[in-house]
Amino acid sequence: MKINSKNFRVGEGEKVNLKKWPTRVKPVYQSKEQYQELLAEQVAELSELQQLLYASNRYAVLLIFQAMDAAGKDGAIKHVMFGVNPQGCQVFSFKHPSATELEHDFLWRTSQCFPERGRIGIFNRSYYEEVLIVRVHPEILRGQGLPEELVDEETIWRERYRSIVDLENHLYRNGTRIIKFFLHLSKEEQRKRFLARIDEPEKNWKFSLADIEERKYWKQYMHAYEACLSATSTKIAPWYVVPADDKENARLIVSRIILDTFKALDMRYPKTDAKRRQELLSIRKRLAKHD
Amino acid sequence: MKINSKNFRVGEGEKVNLKKWPTRVKPVYQSKEQYQELLAEQVAELSELQQLLYASNRYAVLLIFQAMDAAGKDGAIKHVMFGVNPQGCQVFSFKHPSATELEHDFLWRTSQCFPERGRIGIFNRSYYEEVLIVRVHPEILRGQGLPEELVDEETIWRERYRSIVDLENHLYRNGTRIIKFFLHLSKEEQRKRFLARIDEPEKNWKFSLADIEERKYWKQYMHAYEACLSATSTKIAPWYVVPADDKENARLIVSRIILDTFKALDMRYPKTDAKRRQELLSIRKRLAKHD
Repeated sequence: MKINSKNFRVGEGEKVNLKKWPTRVKPVYQSKEQYQELLAEQVAELSELQQLLYASNRYAVLLIFQAMDAAGKDGAIKHVMFGVNPQGCQVFSFKHPSATELEHDFLWRTSQCFPERGRIGIFNRSYYEEVLIVRVHPEILRGQGLPEELVDEETIWRERYRSIVDLENHLYRNGTRIIKFFLHLSKEEQRKRFLARIDEPEKNWKFSLADIEERKYWKQYMHAYEACLSATSTKIAPWYVVPADDKENARLIVSRIILDTFKALDMRYPKTDAKRRQELLSIRKRLAKHD
Repeated sequence: MKINSKNFRVGEGEKVNLKKWPTRVKPVYQSKEQYQELLAEQVAELSELQQLLYASNRYAVLLIFQAMDAAGKDGAIKHVMFGVNPQGCQVFSFKHPSATELEHDFLWRTSQCFPERGRIGIFNRSYYEEVLIVRVHPEILRGQGLPEELVDEETIWRERYRSIVDLENHLYRNGTRIIKFFLHLSKEEQRKRFLARIDEPEKNWKFSLADIEERKYWKQYMHAYEACLSATSTKIAPWYVVPADDKENARLIVSRIILDTFKALDMRYPKTDAKRRQELLSIRKRLAKHD
């Protein structure tokens, strides 16, 4: 069975109802071994494409991961990007903003982290938090020090979507390709994973009471995600809703979507023309003499 | 005689023909002494407003200066901002971009320099260079490593204007007020100032042969400025064309425009309510005891 990226993509202008998007689908692998094999294949392919991205030095790729806690963002990043040359790949995790960051516009703190040409940048959480957690918790917005007349419940989220879409269009026009993943987890599966975290000592550190508290806002989060995905999935920077109740399958899907995006890029190794060949030849001669 | 800011403002959608915009107008001062007095008054006023900006901590102000060489950008910044608390004011000069900067989109390198809430940020040259010098010298654009299909002479400047206007709208929506100055100098006045630079040892360092070379492209620069001003002057981030053949008068105009913009902001010192007064009172008591 092959994964079809398109099945998970939110169309531009499509109104998202997350209840209709599955958190679990029939897995593409039949056994743990087959999963390992499939992932290894895809990782090898990605590693090659990343080298080409680096050598051709024209495009940058930005991967954005958003999800509820315990949906498997860290694991997906780790396993999908495993084997990719770290020099061509940078991961940024965005947690609580600093005081200095709060003194600027809401896109400021992520702006310096955009990937250079030839590289893959990964945002583990991103500026999308500004229309997700900030929307669910209005007290955060009040703490952002905006002029009062600019904080209007009716317009502020629409305006933030607009700022985000404008920014992504700008990046696209300058050679950055953006893929956005929402790892779609069920509330029940989160509960199970939280329980596992409590029981397993090596996962304990990943857990705090605040995580449980946030479960109360599950519905509000889903609404915020629905509004966000509907407003900001575009042809040039689409959202993918990845069923995440099965971690392994989610990784295979994420990996496949990245591969498909890479393959659509017009990348070539820098050409060796007659002049360059001549140059290489003369370098070889000089090196040979002083062997 | 009073300066009317509006006379120098480029309306949104207005098509600019720089030949019709004067490089010299009747000065508002009659003598060197009167100029000094007027400037001192305006500087004092600005200093007070800047304190209010800082205390109310809601808005940021971004001043952008663009001009041909020797138009007086540095002098205007120095004299107009003289006396403003340096903690509330930061100047950034943008010269040749670094290799790392060139590996990113064209708005990247300035993005980290935007002013925090409560502060004035000054760009001595700015992202506008990307549609000015880069437009006049296509070889610079070719050196920016963009994917070929994105570099289309027909669309790239329009797209860059779009990116800039989108960015400025975003900043506005987040509390940053932007004022853009084009110091409008005549080619003849530039010639005189260049000659003066050669003759005065303390101005020598400001001069290189490359500056003279650029004079060849005067016409192309004026065209680039006209297209840029026409496309990017908006209600929320207007361009002002300031006649710059008379340096002193130019400074008075720039200063007046800044003052008018500040006065339009809804700024207040943080309120001292009953509870806060009580708190201050109790602090006073405690301090008094341990005098």
